[in-house]
Amino acid sequence: MDQRALVQGASRGIGLAFVKELRRRNPDGTVFATCREPAAAAELTGLADSDTGIRPVQLDATDDRSVRRAAESIAAGTERLDLLINVAGLLHEGSHLRPERRLSEVDRSALQRVFDLNAFGPLLVARHFEPLLRAGEQPRFAALSARVGSIGDNRLGGWYAYRMSKAALNMGLRTLAIEWARGSRRITTIALHPGTVATDLSAPFRRNGDARRTVFSPETAAGQLLDVLDGIGPDDTGGFFAWDGARIPW
Amino acid sequence: MDQRALVQGASRGIGLAFVKELRRRNPDGTVFATCREPAAAAELTGLADSDTGIRPVQLDATDDRSVRRAAESIAAGTERLDLLINVAGLLHEGSHLRPERRLSEVDRSALQRVFDLNAFGPLLVARHFEPLLRAGEQPRFAALSARVGSIGDNRLGGWYAYRMSKAALNMGLRTLAIEWARGSRRITTIALHPGTVATDLSAPFRRNGDARRTVFSPETAAGQLLDVLDGIGPDDTGGFFAWDGARIPW
Repeated sequence: MDQRALVQGASRGIGLAFVKELRRRNPDGTVFATCREPAAAAELTGLADSDTGIRPVQLDATDDRSVRRAAESIAAGTERLDLLINVAGLLHEGSHLRPERRLSEVDRSALQRVFDLNAFGPLLVARHFEPLLRAGEQPRFAALSARVGSIGDNRLGGWYAYRMSKAALNMGLRTLAIEWARGSRRITTIALHPGTVATDLSAPFRRNGDARRTVFSPETAAGQLLDVLDGIGPDDTGGFFAWDGARIPW
Repeated sequence: MDQRALVQGASRGIGLAFVKELRRRNPDGTVFATCREPAAAAELTGLADSDTGIRPVQLDATDDRSVRRAAESIAAGTERLDLLINVAGLLHEGSHLRPERRLSEVDRSALQRVFDLNAFGPLLVARHFEPLLRAGEQPRFAALSARVGSIGDNRLGGWYAYRMSKAALNMGLRTLAIEWARGSRRITTIALHPGTVATDLSAPFRRNGDARRTVFSPETAAGQLLDVLDGIGPDDTGGFFAWDGARIPW
């Protein structure tokens, strides 16, 4: 099948690895690779230069007009989307936004910035791409959440904004799953935990982690998550799955 | 004991009922009653006129300077807080902000407004009142969450912003509970579900609810929740409790 997929946040890390792996698995398919600044995404645009199955598109998930424009642009090139994966997420940014070690570091503007991308972004993407997904073949909508976004699994504390934004995202996906389980063209909707992956997001924190914990390459992580996506069906909609297919509590 | 309590969002509804019930239960105590516009809170200021145990204080939980000023003002009148209950919350506002019936109604500015009060507000209140709570007698910090903020219990969908904001609040409280379980002066931290209560918040929706569902008066709801608070100990910190003391899943 000429699968039509969209990867949101495709400029680097796990998102870029999804693009490569989707191209490997579906040579006849098309991957719309969205990111904030395609012109600055050298590796992505390099791949797209030699592969017409990769279509970079500008999309800033914190800007509604940008999301709407991206949906219109992509709708001009395909009548359906079979898979949409939201990868873009924010844990730290420069020197001014760092995960909080304690309450005294909690800052409203940081909360607002993190939620705008991590929790609100995927919902607005869902809203504007719903028509294309409804026309998809057994359509699936996924977003990268994180185990630290599990309320029940929280043992360490800290990382207020990131944890809270992923819990909010999980609720948003669950609510979407309920809405999209109704009607004739159902969209399977899940939250994914990629494990610890060697990307810019985790770079400042991996040294502090459990040395025994496996750190995946972006390519391995993308492959594992696509295997999870291939293994789920409509009955799994609304679930929260780890990289190995195990369910994670809310 | 001359309990020192603070009710955030005390101008009406459940918050105002908490103020009255706390005064009834602790005649020797003091209740700091915070709200956005004390001058416009006629019933609260009327009560305070004839009861020196009620101290209205201006606090807008969406404005950090206001939260800090309120903490400074209250610290001038008490060296400790034994109980702090966050009641202020937003489900609808005028004609422009209504709970979403479906994805197509999800709006970023509504999400931002709802999260700023429901999820970020209690965290910023916690941050600025932490010194007073640490000095409290068996201090307790609670916030009104809602069963519709339970991800696992979500069956109906809809109400995206409200549901997501309460899930984020639950994570914030859980993370706070972990941080505040450390050290010598522990602050017991819980999320509360008041049930359906006859307030302005629920007014537009009660007619659509299950007719068999009990609707509590604000006074009954406040009394029940204070009973829950009286019944919990430090081991219950980080929990999510309904009005009858039952645990709610995340």
